Amino acid sequence: MRETSSERSDGRRPAQLRPVQISPKYLKTAAGSALIEMGDTKVLCTVSPVDGVPPFLVGTGKGWLTAEYSMLPGSSTRRVARESNSRAREIQRLIGRSLRTVVNLEQIGERTLYVDCDVIQADGGTRTASITGAYVALVEALQTLPGEVLVDQVAAVSVGIVGDQCLLDLCYEEDSRADTDMNVVMTGSGGIVEVQGTAEGRPFTRAQAIELLDLAAEGIERLLAVQQSVLSALTEA
Amino acid sequence: MRETSSERSDGRRPAQLRPVQISPKYLKTAAGSALIEMGDTKVLCTVSPVDGVPPFLVGTGKGWLTAEYSMLPGSSTRRVARESNSRAREIQRLIGRSLRTVVNLEQIGERTLYVDCDVIQADGGTRTASITGAYVALVEALQTLPGEVLVDQVAAVSVGIVGDQCLLDLCYEEDSRADTDMNVVMTGSGGIVEVQGTAEGRPFTRAQAIELLDLAAEGIERLLAVQQSVLSALTEA
Amino acid sequence: MRETSSERSDGRRPAQLRPVQISPKYLKTAAGSALIEMGDTKVLCTVSPVDGVPPFLVGTGKGWLTAEYSMLPGSSTRRVARESNSRAREIQRLIGRSLRTVVNLEQIGERTLYVDCDVIQADGGTRTASITGAYVALVEALQTLPGEVLVDQVAAVSVGIVGDQCLLDLCYEEDSRADTDMNVVMTGSGGIVEVQGTAEGRPFTRAQAIELLDLAAEGIERLLAVQQSVLSALTEA
Amino acid sequence: MRETSSERSDGRRPAQLRPVQISPKYLKTAAGSALIEMGDTKVLCTVSPVDGVPPFLVGTGKGWLTAEYSMLPGSSTRRVARESNSRAREIQRLIGRSLRTVVNLEQIGERTLYVDCDVIQADGGTRTASITGAYVALVEALQTLPGEVLVDQVAAVSVGIVGDQCLLDLCYEEDSRADTDMNVVMTGSGGIVEVQGTAEGRPFTRAQAIELLDLAAEGIERLLAVQQSVLSALTEA
Amino acid sequence: MRETSSERSDGRRPAQLRPVQISPKYLKTAAGSALIEMGDTKVLCTVSPVDGVPPFLVGTGKGWLTAEYSMLPGSSTRRVARESNSRAREIQRLIGRSLRTVVNLEQIGERTLYVDCDVIQADGGTRTASITGAYVALVEALQTLPGEVLVDQVAAVSVGIVGDQCLLDLCYEEDSRADTDMNVVMTGSGGIVEVQGTAEGRPFTRAQAIELLDLAAEGIERLLAVQQSVLSALTEA
Amino acid sequence: MRETSSERSDGRRPAQLRPVQISPKYLKTAAGSALIEMGDTKVLCTVSPVDGVPPFLVGTGKGWLTAEYSMLPGSSTRRVARESNSRAREIQRLIGRSLRTVVNLEQIGERTLYVDCDVIQADGGTRTASITGAYVALVEALQTLPGEVLVDQVAAVSVGIVGDQCLLDLCYEEDSRADTDMNVVMTGSGGIVEVQGTAEGRPFTRAQAIELLDLAAEGIERLLAVQQSVLSALTEA
Repeated sequence: MRETSSERSDGRRPAQLRPVQISPKYLKTAAGSALIEMGDTKVLCTVSPVDGVPPFLVGTGKGWLTAEYSMLPGSSTRRVARESNSRAREIQRLIGRSLRTVVNLEQIGERTLYVDCDVIQADGGTRTASITGAYVALVEALQTLPGEVLVDQVAAVSVGIVGDQCLLDLCYEEDSRADTDMNVVMTGSGGIVEVQGTAEGRPFTRAQAIELLDLAAEGIERLLAVQQSVLSALTEA
Repeated sequence: MRETSSERSDGRRPAQLRPVQISPKYLKTAAGSALIEMGDTKVLCTVSPVDGVPPFLVGTGKGWLTAEYSMLPGSSTRRVARESNSRAREIQRLIGRSLRTVVNLEQIGERTLYVDCDVIQADGGTRTASITGAYVALVEALQTLPGEVLVDQVAAVSVGIVGDQCLLDLCYEEDSRADTDMNVVMTGSGGIVEVQGTAEGRPFTRAQAIELLDLAAEGIERLLAVQQSVLSALTEA
Repeated sequence: MRETSSERSDGRRPAQLRPVQISPKYLKTAAGSALIEMGDTKVLCTVSPVDGVPPFLVGTGKGWLTAEYSMLPGSSTRRVARESNSRAREIQRLIGRSLRTVVNLEQIGERTLYVDCDVIQADGGTRTASITGAYVALVEALQTLPGEVLVDQVAAVSVGIVGDQCLLDLCYEEDSRADTDMNVVMTGSGGIVEVQGTAEGRPFTRAQAIELLDLAAEGIERLLAVQQSVLSALTEA
Repeated sequence: MRETSSERSDGRRPAQLRPVQISPKYLKTAAGSALIEMGDTKVLCTVSPVDGVPPFLVGTGKGWLTAEYSMLPGSSTRRVARESNSRAREIQRLIGRSLRTVVNLEQIGERTLYVDCDVIQADGGTRTASITGAYVALVEALQTLPGEVLVDQVAAVSVGIVGDQCLLDLCYEEDSRADTDMNVVMTGSGGIVEVQGTAEGRPFTRAQAIELLDLAAEGIERLLAVQQSVLSALTEA
Repeated sequence: MRETSSERSDGRRPAQLRPVQISPKYLKTAAGSALIEMGDTKVLCTVSPVDGVPPFLVGTGKGWLTAEYSMLPGSSTRRVARESNSRAREIQRLIGRSLRTVVNLEQIGERTLYVDCDVIQADGGTRTASITGAYVALVEALQTLPGEVLVDQVAAVSVGIVGDQCLLDLCYEEDSRADTDMNVVMTGSGGIVEVQGTAEGRPFTRAQAIELLDLAAEGIERLLAVQQSVLSALTEA
Repeated sequence: MRETSSERSDGRRPAQLRPVQISPKYLKTAAGSALIEMGDTKVLCTVSPVDGVPPFLVGTGKGWLTAEYSMLPGSSTRRVARESNSRAREIQRLIGRSLRTVVNLEQIGERTLYVDCDVIQADGGTRTASITGAYVALVEALQTLPGEVLVDQVAAVSVGIVGDQCLLDLCYEEDSRADTDMNVVMTGSGGIVEVQGTAEGRPFTRAQAIELLDLAAEGIERLLAVQQSVLSALTEA
């Protein structure tokens, strides 16, 4: 019944993703790189393996993956100040945790995979797009390292409640009107890695929580398919 | 059926809270203060109204509420370095958002309610205990301000999956073995304010997500009753 | 003659300490911990041994002791901003120096004793109470290490000149009216470790300096007795 | 005679620029934006007018222009740490000074033009490409403000001495072998705005200094033509 | 009896100051400036009145005096890192408090007197030399302001216990061997402004404390005379 | 023909340096030290060898030279805030690069030469005076190290265009009126190490650029002679 009545600002149905495009091998310089576009949201994701690990791993033979997230100053109609803030750090911990779930870090030796997600243009859903795009850059970068390192696939999407309707993949205009905003990260095998639901205005109910989870699962399934199609084209080439 | 088989380290049933005690009016200096103890977790919560608001509210006549969270160095068997870190900031944003949900900030004029949660002794669940305890300190502090400011009650609890079992109110030892850790914040009227579920190890399923939510709802109901009992004793005195 | 005329705000005689209570083993988490209360001043002192020493001691086989001091935000009727400031650092250097005087750091190997003094409620004399309380926590923590490490006992008190009268153990209200404020640290064997006297208003005379020193010595003698009584109860238990 | 003998790594003649492309209106979010590509060097330039000016201009009715420069982490084969460093600040002062030369800041009221240059991919000459590209973004952004603000055109290029030969527009590989590196900024009317020549290895002679200046002037003339062609296409559209 | 037996490294008697020289009007740029030399210790003191006061004084019509203290990197045989540290801040608070004692800040309007003490060459006693020299620079700077602002004269000296002997004005070599180090600040009218005595090794006795105070008083009397002679030469010229 | 018409504020001819004096061995504490005075500009330069090198040189057996530059607060009629800023860092990189050109760092082992330039009094040309003075301090400091480390001599001067006239060695008053400001660093053998020319107002022409370079070369020749005369006096003594 989600597909009826109230119009979304860009004419999408409630359970419809924005147009998604992932451009792999976007840069010559980084080991892995991908530009992901979800509607007007554009994020450049790069992955750079660097020798060395954080202190708690030195001497263990295991590797690490860490993420950084930043919005370019011109990515928003109101200029974004450049200094990294604690909100960015909350986001980058989310990105890092999500990607670590699908990598066997014991296989890569004492090196750190730096995942950098830089938002070129922001129109909502930048943190979940970062995860979905970074997965593609990660696969690219891991092709330069020996061994079977990937253990699963991972993608993410935002959902939310606007008015009384649950919507998939909110753009900025919808996000700013939403009563609830939820980010969901899931693996290729259907497991939930992360759920972060926040009531900005009215609290939400148990039933709405479940509807949001299901809507997110639908969207993530389609994003996993986009990732696979991009990556199989890469392998063939 | 959760109440069967596998023993918890302190002999509790899966859906059982640790002993909870909230000591209101703990300090003479702060407008509101409460010490909350959940098992061996002890958090000192204070609320201090301060004149002035952040720049985005100046001139609006509205107030603000912000939270700070910190662990005292001796609160953990491994000494906690004192410098505030970005993890603390993620936690204090959660505390601040949760409490703002139940306060009508338009009623308090251009002042800021500083909520300070200092962990005296940590044994798991410090961020959710902070929310539950800070609510009591907040009620105290608001008694010094005119008007009807509170619009609802709020409390929080952690739940998690250890082995294959969903457990309520994890202590530190359980938390460190958990595959999934979820913090849930709910209001007195039963709405969900925040859900943050993270798979530290294996991803979790839709069914487990729902079971965790329901377990949290049970626990929060009991915490709301403890808050009410403490506060009614205060009013009578 | 000090004991005559002018009334103190709490009715004490000029050479009278406020009620003192030291609660040892206050926390389960820290190796040593004590809550000291002098009137309404309450300071939580913990001592945590941590492996490693500052660069200038690496390779010497000797240990180190360092102190940190902080006021909790709600410890004062005017909220205390949390960021550690340089005034706190001046205080923590005083605490550290005073305690190092009674510890044989060559006996503890290359480890650092972190002494943390967190003011829960402030009513004057927090830095001297920190030293007196931390000594008890230090004795506790050293029981977990082998060898004879303690070489003496140490305690501290503040004295000051209000009007023309020399007073022992100033509370906040007295301190804010004092012309001179002096902190004195002495050992169990009666030596002076530190004297810091500052004229906030009128300079003081040589005769007053000597009277203040003598008044402090009286107070410290009583605090040393309180420490011994608390610690002997511990040992018996 | 520069055009003879020694081969450049990419087959260019000594006085030949790399292929240059400027893509205007690159983003929807920023008032002005352009992607400049010089060979493999790619810089995203945005210009955002923001209300307010630095303290020294408040109340004067005049505006300001300031630049920020940053390399994205994946822009180099060796990952670039994200924290802004003092080298970046030296570069952004150069960019800011160069663009202020061609803008009549008295015409724009008390607003600040933020020029952001983010290096997407680095292959030498990023600071001079930033100036050349930012000029196009600046023209775009100024179309949203009333009045005649631009007083001249500006572009920049790097030159250097490799072996004994003066070369135009060094790529990274040449730059790393150069004995002298010089950045030159000139206006549309042929004036020199900035010359920064540094001997990394052997000092250079008066004759070489003049030859480098002349080579840069040739290159800048061509870059000014590219800017004009891009901007006239914009205006026609 | 102090004047007997044990030799000081530079042949001085125990109660003898090093040669003192104060060069007033040392710079053309600062409102007040003086170079003080005590033996090989050289400190450049400048005083600059700046419009404006700290927040707690805005609107009161009163002024402020604040001090900064720094050691130049080459001032010690072991290079001093340039970043201001908390030890410097403890010293600059001492300098500021001492000078504020002799200035009537209500007379200078809402301006701040910045006292800057930069150690050119360090050989012990730099903080007390800073106070003594800064007083001269302060008098100079106050001549540019209207009104009677000075209420007294102030100077400072260090004393200490080396072996069992009390010594005046310790040089670095003596200071590093001292068991006790005491800094004393006194006014022209003989009042004590500050006493800071620290046992670096063995604690000191009541009798030693009094002997150190008396020794300091002798030294300060001579320094006050040097200041007066320098300043009267200034006034005559 | 430069020597005609328009008067300079201090009566100098356009190609005339201000009176220059370099006082070597200015401090006892630093390995090398010199005070350079050019007119009213006074800079204290010290050089301190410190064991250890930056990470990129560890294990190579080579040394390093780094410079720090700072203005003392009282060095300007408007007090200079003490915190090191990015402009200072741009200057210290210039000083460091210039001096490294004349030192064979492979000869000094894994130690770092810290060059500290502290401006005592500023009247224009402080960065170029720093280079010229630091060279003398460097020669002194290198006499304490074995081997032939110096490979050339280095000095620097500022030139500029005021009105339409090219002037040598601008004082502050001239510098603030200049349309173009250029700093030039040259070696004893006549090579150019650095040229930094900036149009503050009107751009400058190719012909003016050449005239400025030639004027700087004249001034530097005289400064090199002053350095030699100071250093030969040192060697003879």
